[in-house]
Amino acid sequence: MTAYKDMTVGQLNSELDSLRAAFEEFKSRGLKLNMARGKPSTEQLDLASDLMTALVEGQPLLDANGEDTRNYGVIRGIPEARELMAAIMEVPPANVIVGGNSSLSMMYDSIARSMSFGVRGSEPWCRQDGLKFLCPAPGYDRHFAITEAFGIENIPIAMNSDGPDMDTVKRLVESDASVKGIWCVPKYSNPQGITYSDAVVECFAALKPAATDFRIYWDNAYALHDLYPSEGDSLASIKEACDKSGNPDIWNMFASTSKVSLAGGGIAALASSEDNLDEVEKLISYQTICPDKVNQLRHVRWAEALGVGGASGGASGGASGVEVGCGSGTSGEFSGTGAGVSGTGAGHDGKNLALAGIQAHMAKLAAILAPKFTIVCDTLERELGDKCIATWSSPKGGYFISLEGLPGTAKRSVALAKEAGVVLTGAGATWPYGKDPADTNIRIAPSYPGVDELKLASELLCLCISIAAAESLLDQ
Amino acid sequence: MTAYKDMTVGQLNSELDSLRAAFEEFKSRGLKLNMARGKPSTEQLDLASDLMTALVEGQPLLDANGEDTRNYGVIRGIPEARELMAAIMEVPPANVIVGGNSSLSMMYDSIARSMSFGVRGSEPWCRQDGLKFLCPAPGYDRHFAITEAFGIENIPIAMNSDGPDMDTVKRLVESDASVKGIWCVPKYSNPQGITYSDAVVECFAALKPAATDFRIYWDNAYALHDLYPSEGDSLASIKEACDKSGNPDIWNMFASTSKVSLAGGGIAALASSEDNLDEVEKLISYQTICPDKVNQLRHVRWAEALGVGGASGGASGGASGVEVGCGSGTSGEFSGTGAGVSGTGAGHDGKNLALAGIQAHMAKLAAILAPKFTIVCDTLERELGDKCIATWSSPKGGYFISLEGLPGTAKRSVALAKEAGVVLTGAGATWPYGKDPADTNIRIAPSYPGVDELKLASELLCLCISIAAAESLLDQ
Repeated sequence: MTAYKDMTVGQLNSELDSLRAAFEEFKSRGLKLNMARGKPSTEQLDLASDLMTALVEGQPLLDANGEDTRNYGVIRGIPEARELMAAIMEVPPANVIVGGNSSLSMMYDSIARSMSFGVRGSEPWCRQDGLKFLCPAPGYDRHFAITEAFGIENIPIAMNSDGPDMDTVKRLVESDASVKGIWCVPKYSNPQGITYSDAVVECFAALKPAATDFRIYWDNAYALHDLYPSEGDSLASIKEACDKSGNPDIWNMFASTSKVSLAGGGIAALASSEDNLDEVEKLISYQTICPDKVNQLRHVRWAEALGVGGASGGASGGASGVEVGCGSGTSGEFSGTGAGVSGTGAGHDGKNLALAGIQAHMAKLAAILAPKFTIVCDTLERELGDKCIATWSSPKGGYFISLEGLPGTAKRSVALAKEAGVVLTGAGATWPYGKDPADTNIRIAPSYPGVDELKLASELLCLCISIAAAESLLDQ
Repeated sequence: MTAYKDMTVGQLNSELDSLRAAFEEFKSRGLKLNMARGKPSTEQLDLASDLMTALVEGQPLLDANGEDTRNYGVIRGIPEARELMAAIMEVPPANVIVGGNSSLSMMYDSIARSMSFGVRGSEPWCRQDGLKFLCPAPGYDRHFAITEAFGIENIPIAMNSDGPDMDTVKRLVESDASVKGIWCVPKYSNPQGITYSDAVVECFAALKPAATDFRIYWDNAYALHDLYPSEGDSLASIKEACDKSGNPDIWNMFASTSKVSLAGGGIAALASSEDNLDEVEKLISYQTICPDKVNQLRHVRWAEALGVGGASGGASGGASGVEVGCGSGTSGEFSGTGAGVSGTGAGHDGKNLALAGIQAHMAKLAAILAPKFTIVCDTLERELGDKCIATWSSPKGGYFISLEGLPGTAKRSVALAKEAGVVLTGAGATWPYGKDPADTNIRIAPSYPGVDELKLASELLCLCISIAAAESLLDQ
């Protein structure tokens, strides 16, 4: 097929007619599919069913220090859960606090504490004016929503193929004391699946912020979420880089098992410098007596049992990671970055049975997820590959595919899909204030639907993008 | 024995000598006991061991609406958990949000939201000056710590035998718009075990606060915690009273299963008016995607299984609830209040199997706890009854016994106990800023130690109180 931009008006009108006919045909099927959020599928959740019975009757429920997990106390979380999350986050356990089921709430709470109490002696943010947060975009809407809710101005930062535009980040952070932080998903970023390069990580670590209370919010949500275990991206250690740069306190890292064990019943963790954690512990001791330590112990015992079981399953083959498409999206390329060979986590030295168990489990989840990513990417390639109306990412991990359509077409594409029964993430949601300046970005979440549904939904999506593109070109 | 105040100096010196000899004897035993916090004992926790396996493999993990508890979503908590907590809190499920494991964190978060976002359209508290909170004292130190942390001034309010001094509460709340709330433990108050009378509840409901964003923080922590099931206190409904008074929005109620199932792994709830909850839901949707719904389902299934099992065990006999002692404490009396016959919860109409199960479980816990309260009260009566140096509460429920010694003796008594290896709640902790103005109040937590340990600790405590009293009288 000819690229749309090279078609005559007549050809494009004819194409639009046939697209619309196909669209009506789709509508008549009465689809009801949801690709809006990065939700694990039931099949994935079922793989964690042993978690429910990981704590067996008669077995003592003491933590590694002999504390009863069922009772009050141990505010930083039990030692073995801190070890497991530390291994996942590739930092020492002394740098980790394990909380409840939600890393988002640990991020929100961190911002909320900064608002009310300041950061390490700084004036509380609620008494400072004109606060700003940097938001690499497209990015994660729930990050942006937190700072927006607190009245902090969200500043979009362009994403390059190896991470945020660090020239702009450096300029803003180092010149403006009202810039208090930056939201990052450094590995398999939401939505593009980009892993920050070593150079980008080093640049973050070497920042000389104008504000003493500036913090990097490093949401390591997809630390273990390779789609193809043998060729995952690797992410440099922000902790080590910051320590080397004499900036030991400027990072806060977050992770959870929401997309490892259960989205609604996992465990989450905050990592930061020991000095920062001392302050955090003091402040969270007003908020709670302890996290749900029983669920922490449940997770460790479950993971250890998986570790004894050893790795099995896992995805084979896989997508190329190479950029597909030739369209006019605003971002040039999304090809895999990262620094070469994928590691298995600095904390895994043969002794951490729980980490080994989690890794084996992730390989099983990848075997479910990878074919879904392949379906979407293959459909995009087949249906849009030669129309030159979109580019998209082919990530090696994470939960999303990011698509850039022609300027001014994303909202229309998403509205069309909804009309035919497929709910996507709202167009614009990946940008601060829901405003995608060029109206190009569509976030695709392939994890939840079944394979057959996903094929249909992907075809429909291509149809909607094509209609919106043809309409837009004809309207010019 | 003669009352200390009627002894001659010579008699009192001789008494002090023999007390000190007994104290040295105690010290030589090398005790290591903790009665500082209201922690459930291991025996109590063991009774909830079925909770660990309440979710069995192969059983679907859907909530009553068919939502998968393992996945994201359902921010107010699953319907059956809301029903259970509603039945415990004696309010409709529509008035309940079920959260994670900690009611304290739901209180803290409520204050934190008020600080940052205001309450139903009011100016955020962080932008208002000179905020005050009323603190019936003696009271719960962790309540007072929250408002203190946020820089809110804690104002002590005297406790009468039927609840806080409502004349003062009414005067302050209705005349001063900087008074934003009051901390209440309305049933089996911490530490005195007082249940607010119907008149007090009605007086709360009829308040006409000067501040639109004034809220009653009604921590219904001991709703089900009767020591003697057949003669528990009953608490009037703050919701119904507020609705009747045309004040539907001024209450926030909190409860948890921390002292029902597991202190470290229970579920907690916030109840308030539906309009208030709409605002809360909007704000917590920035903080988290959902609570741990799996643990909510686990609790409901466990409670239902207990309900099928039916009631068994339960305490028999019990303390009188009548005031004991004749000393000079600052509060006159602590005798049981409440409005007559103990109900079993408005929500329990035969259909709520889960509530019935919880009630049966509470009777078993009471059978463990009641003898411990009896040991403490009997020892106090035997050792201090005729010395006229202390009064104490004999509550029908809750987790604490509150003792009022002679003015200026509480700190000394607690320090002596610590010297001999028994840790009590720090003297003063039950008052705002840790400052007990008369230095009289000692909070005793009988739940955690074993029966034999508790006997020893109670004897030691009486010795310490006697020494401090004799020293104080001789020093006058």
